[in-house]
Parts: sequence; C-alpha cells; structure tokens
Amino acid sequence: MAILLEHVTAVTMDEERRVLKDAFVAVEGTKIASVGLERPEGTFERVIDGTGKVLMPGLINCHTHVAMTLLRGYGGGHDLQHWLHDYIFPAEARLDETCVAAGAALGMAEMIASGTTCIADMYMHSGAVARTALEAGLSANLSCGGVWFGAPEDFSPDKCGDCQNQIALTEGWHGANGGQILVDASIHAEYTSNPPLWQWMADYAAAHGLGMQVHISETGSEHQGCLDKYGLTPVQLLDRYGVWRGGGTAAHCVWVTDEDMDLMARRNITAVHNPVSNLKLASGVARVPALLEAGVNVALGTDGVASNNSHDLFEEIKLAAILHKGVSGDPAAVSALQALEMATVNGARALGRADTGVIAPGKTADLILLDFTRPGLTPCHDVYENLAFSARGSDVVMNMARGKVIYENGTFFTLDLEGIRARVEGYALPRIFG
Amino acid sequence: MAILLEHVTAVTMDEERRVLKDAFVAVEGTKIASVGLERPEGTFERVIDGTGKVLMPGLINCHTHVAMTLLRGYGGGHDLQHWLHDYIFPAEARLDETCVAAGAALGMAEMIASGTTCIADMYMHSGAVARTALEAGLSANLSCGGVWFGAPEDFSPDKCGDCQNQIALTEGWHGANGGQILVDASIHAEYTSNPPLWQWMADYAAAHGLGMQVHISETGSEHQGCLDKYGLTPVQLLDRYGVWRGGGTAAHCVWVTDEDMDLMARRNITAVHNPVSNLKLASGVARVPALLEAGVNVALGTDGVASNNSHDLFEEIKLAAILHKGVSGDPAAVSALQALEMATVNGARALGRADTGVIAPGKTADLILLDFTRPGLTPCHDVYENLAFSARGSDVVMNMARGKVIYENGTFFTLDLEGIRARVEGYALPRIFG
Repeated sequence: MAILLEHVTAVTMDEERRVLKDAFVAVEGTKIASVGLERPEGTFERVIDGTGKVLMPGLINCHTHVAMTLLRGYGGGHDLQHWLHDYIFPAEARLDETCVAAGAALGMAEMIASGTTCIADMYMHSGAVARTALEAGLSANLSCGGVWFGAPEDFSPDKCGDCQNQIALTEGWHGANGGQILVDASIHAEYTSNPPLWQWMADYAAAHGLGMQVHISETGSEHQGCLDKYGLTPVQLLDRYGVWRGGGTAAHCVWVTDEDMDLMARRNITAVHNPVSNLKLASGVARVPALLEAGVNVALGTDGVASNNSHDLFEEIKLAAILHKGVSGDPAAVSALQALEMATVNGARALGRADTGVIAPGKTADLILLDFTRPGLTPCHDVYENLAFSARGSDVVMNMARGKVIYENGTFFTLDLEGIRARVEGYALPRIFG
Repeated sequence: MAILLEHVTAVTMDEERRVLKDAFVAVEGTKIASVGLERPEGTFERVIDGTGKVLMPGLINCHTHVAMTLLRGYGGGHDLQHWLHDYIFPAEARLDETCVAAGAALGMAEMIASGTTCIADMYMHSGAVARTALEAGLSANLSCGGVWFGAPEDFSPDKCGDCQNQIALTEGWHGANGGQILVDASIHAEYTSNPPLWQWMADYAAAHGLGMQVHISETGSEHQGCLDKYGLTPVQLLDRYGVWRGGGTAAHCVWVTDEDMDLMARRNITAVHNPVSNLKLASGVARVPALLEAGVNVALGTDGVASNNSHDLFEEIKLAAILHKGVSGDPAAVSALQALEMATVNGARALGRADTGVIAPGKTADLILLDFTRPGLTPCHDVYENLAFSARGSDVVMNMARGKVIYENGTFFTLDLEGIRARVEGYALPRIFG
C-alpha cells in the first residue's frame, strides 16, 4: 500500500537532523519511499493531511518487561525488598504463557497509543511476547533474561532452563517476519547468575549473531556486591567472559564508574536510561551527562510498569531532559534534541536496527504523528523543545509501524482492546491473584 | 442545576481519606449535595454514568504564571541568566493586557483539559487573568508579584507601580463572583524588592485579609545572596516585616533551611513544590520529605510553562512522588497519597479555600472524572497508586468547576479554542515577536 503524508512538519532525525516544514513523506509497503518539500509523483491509496501536525520517527523503548502491566501499582508503597519478595516474585511465579500474552497485549496497546513502534523486552514466556508483537505490529528485540542460581560446577546448558529457553526462543523467532522480531541473548544480571552461564551466553550470542541484554549496576548494593565478590564492576566482570563481544544493551547503569563508561564506549554497549523507574525504586540517578561525554550510546526505557507505572516514552524523554539539569545544576545538561535522539536514533543503534529511528528514504516506515494544534503544544517556538518538554504520549494521533497504520485517533487497528481487557480480567488476574 | 454522578469510584480526600466504590455524588448549583453508596432522592437534570471511572477533587495549581504559555519553549537550551535576560524579560516587556488575556486563556484551556479547577497566579495585567478565569470557570487566587527596584528611602506606595496594581486588583476583583476570584498580596521575591515594600505589602494584606504569594529560595545563589546581604534567609527576613502574619504561599523553597521549615510550620506558610520547573531550570531539588516531617503544608505548582513546559498537574504529582525516592534512596519517601494530597487538600489550605479540594457534602463541586478503562490505567490494584503514578492529564474526561461541567471528552464549554488560537497567533505573538 502506498501512503502519502502531506503538509507535515517532519522531524527527520537524519544525519543533518533536518526539520522540514510543509513536507511530503511517501510510504510504500513497509518502507519510506521519499522525503521532501515537493509532492512526489505516483498514486497513493491514502493521503494523510499533516497540517498542524508533527511527524517523527516512532519511539524505541529499549528496556521493558511488557507483560508486567498485570502488576501495575501492585504492592506500591513498600520498600524494595518487601515489594519484590512479598509482592512481585510471588505474583510472577503464577504467571503462565496466557497471562504473559494478555499482559503483553495490554502493554503494547498502551505503547502504541503513546507513540512507540519498537521495543526491547526481557521476560519469561517470551514466545508469547513475540506472537503478541507480531499481532500488534511492533518490532521487538526479545530476550528471556537468563538466570542460573546453581553452583558454577553444576552448570550445564541442559540443566539450565534459561539456556533451553534461549535456544527455543532463537530457533522459534529470531528474524521472524523479515526481522520484525529479533531475539537477543541475555543475562538477567550479574547477581542472578555466575560465570558458566555468562560464558555460555556470550558464546551463544557470538555463534548466532545475537544482541545482548543485561541489567547493569541498577542499585548501589548490587554494584558494590559485585565489587566485593569479584573485585570488578559488573560491566568489567562480564567483559572478561566476552559478553560484550557484539556490543549490547546495559539497562539502568545508575552506578557505573568512569572506567566502565570508557569500556562501554569502546565495546558499543548502550546504556539504557530508565529515569522514572530509577527514581521510583530509589535506585538513584544515572550519570547521563558523563555517559554522553564518554561517548557512550544512551537510549531510553520505561522498565516494567510495575516500577514506573506507565509505558509512555515521552515521559522518559522529558525526565531525561530535565532530571540531569536539576541534579547537576547545569541548565544545559542533556538538551531537548539529545533526549529525542535517545528515544529514536540511539535506540535503533542499541537494538541493531539501522533501518528505524529516522525519517529517510529506504528506512522502515516507523512513524508517528502528533497534533501540534492542541493547547499544550501551542505555540511552537521550537519543535524540539515542544517535543521534549510539552508533548505527551496522548498527543500522538497516528502510529504507523512497518508501513501500516496500527493506531489512529484513539482507534487500534491490530489489537482488540475489549478482548484484551477480557483476557486480563477474566483469566490473567484471577490466575495470579485469585 | 442538579447533577448526579452514579456508579463511580469516588476518591474523596475527606478527613478519613475514604475511597467509595460504586458511589453516588450529587451536585446542586455550585455545591456537592451528597456523597454516598445509595442513590439520593430527588430529580436530576443530568445523570452521569461513572462506571469504570474515578472521581476526585479538581486539582489545585498553587503556583503559575499562566499567561507565559505564550513563551512556551522560547529560548530553550540557554543557561538561566541568558535565557531570562536575552529571551524572557525582553519578550515580557512587550506584553500588554490583550496578550496576557490570550495567553491566560490558552493556559487555562490546557489546565482544564488536564483536571485543574483552581489556580494561584502571579503575573502582570492580572485583571485580564481575573476576567479570563471568570470566563473559563476556574477559581483563582491572583497576585501581581510586587517589585520595587528603587532605593528604600525613595519608596512610597504612590511611586510604586505594583502597590498601585495591588490596590487596583484588590478593589476590582477580590471576592468576585462569590469568591471565585480572590486577590492575594504578593512580593515577587526578596531579591527584587526591599524592606519598605515588604512592610507595606504585609500591612496591606493584614488590613484587607488577603493571602500572600512570594517566590522563596528558588536558587542557591538567591538564597545565599539574601544571607550575605541581610544575615537572614528569605523566609526569616520577610518574617521580620510581618509578611507571614496571615500565612502565605512560598513558591519553590528549594534551599530553605531546617530553621526556615520550623518557622513555616508555625506560621502556616505553604511550601509550593514545583518539581518540573526546579529540575528544568537547574535550581535543584526541594527537600520535600524534610518539609513534610517538619509539619509544613506542601502543595504543588507547575510554575509558568516557559520553564516547564506544561500545565499538567498529574505530571507534578508523579514527579513529586518519585523524585524524592530517587534522590534520598528511600523508596517510601512521599507516598502516592501524600502527592495526591499536595494537589488537592493541601492546595486548598494553601489558598485559604476550605471549600474545595475534597469530595464532601456542602463543599464546592470542583470535581474531575478520569477514565480508568484506558490501557494505561488497567488494571487497578490500588486507586491511589494508579492516580499518582499512571494517570496523566489526558485521562481526564470531565472537569466540573463550581458545579458546572466546563470540559468533557475533548470539548470545552466555556472557552473557544479556535478563538483563543486566533488571539494568540493573530495578535499576541506578533505583538511580542513581530
């Protein structure tokens, strides 16, 4: 299908970071066919009037556990250990694949309505997440968050459930539907596994050309515990086992050191900044200006909504752009444009998806349209300032993923909201809490 | 007009902080007539089905400069002094009453759509803000932000333009429409005036029974400058002149000391927390847990949108509830309920409006309805958690101020959005920037 967006302000995020006013963006199939100031030749099945609207690349959520929507707000107000051990872990122990599919569908609806087109997810029953992403229309890098609580000497891939999960996920889903689904290798975290798993996962990722997802230095105690136990930080420790051979995404990075940052820049390890979750869980404030200064690629994530409690990346963009100003005392720390880059081009680089995060010919048509005539986006002295500091997910009026309009003006075209609600309330919640 | 809200989850914020499920709330004229679990007797001109929705008190924005919507995003990315002196002040110097009315109407539209029913505003041409608030239907405490840059010995109320503005504002608007408009006395800040103005304003407020609005210790340099010049903090210095005799609202309070907090608790001075603005302007992080511990009344404000850049109080609620967890390392710092209290009952107390901020019989019917069937508010394990951490202004589907539905499902009943846009783009922006 050929679609033309006309008379739109296009925030391209291309290499020159061009913002084109009164622009024309043509889409053919899953790809952007042309971007320019003149109406392209050809016939279009659909022409979308972009007057008063801003078109930008679909947002990329580089760290989430999307099915955790089922636990939104559950056990809130308790301290972290109490919350995890008395609320989250017991609830998660009751999740089955049907629950995960329902929770993932709910979370993807929320993401789609707020402008996300691509995610990186780490959770259990990831096959259900893959099926749901394909149905929803989102691109997804999926991982199962490998853990190994056994003794190092007892490890073998046959005995490690998450190695088996990894293999099944890779074989079942990697590259599905022309790369819509990519499978990443993953280590849940240093503190939930030990060297044989790290070695196996590093080798497995290298052998299959997979990305790598790891939680890194989220809390001070976890970071210090690793130093005490191994004499190395988590980033450096895992590097000894070749975990970062093909780069990777390191979620959180609240407590990483200057040496870690240098290593991350050299190894192409993306720091996935999750500012809302880091504040809510009292983990601290990641040193994002220092990460940027060190040349580390910084992307954004919401984390699971149990610790957020929302999947709206515009909120993370804004918080990333204001938090570091307030904490550092430097009102120029993290510009509006830098925060928008984190949610688009940097996210694409993090996930090994050079085809998205930018509006340019030949790229995948992952595009969102925001209504800039709303009171909260009026006037517009600077489109980057309004996108970073004034826009919210609810200003998204159209979400096009891989060339297909999957959401428009409150209507979902790939997901059945009523059906999702019935699955959540009729099955998933009773299963977990009943 | 008698209106019944039925089958609604009512978050009352009453003294027992009751949350009533499947409740009935009746409104008659400008007041709440009844709140309960049984359908009240009587006939109603309108019955609103609250199934799947949450009713709560309308939000109270205790510190804004609403007409600054005209400068949304203007001069962003510059350091504070450059931003103020090269962008904001020159633009403000060109504002006239017509600009202020247009900017205020735009800001009020944004506020209404995101659930605000009552504001405290400090700006120039406040008569225009008063007229706009009356038209929009919002309750407002208005002040003109008194400054006196002359030498102390030259001061006289006749020579001080802001004393004349204060007198005109009080005489023209205080108590208008049954108290919908209240006029507060105000001192813009310690560093923009000197003792004779403080004395005059304190005496004037006492003589007329007015509230008091002051910017207090927003930046470290301002706070330290006061200490250097007078040997006292701004809160304590102004206290010497009787400024707090009738309480007051102190906006920002980022750098207040423990002694200041004790004084604030004793004098009934509300600390108005503006977390977004404080981060964006790199002012720092107010010690809200310490303020609460000291017994200070803490309310919330957006500040002007030039430094926010939004008027959505749900964003301030969430940030107030997560920021202090992240900065203090205590995941129990500022609960969901405490943050919601700041935006409702605490705000009402701050503004001397005991009749709002709560759902109880006899109180003013300032009520908002949120759609809890949306994906981002599903499921609801705890209504306070969802309101504080998951709700956003765009989830508000009805705003009733003083008993009148002023907004519903995207439609404004008191403001003409097209007309506002025409006034902003046709007159105000050309006047300021043309």
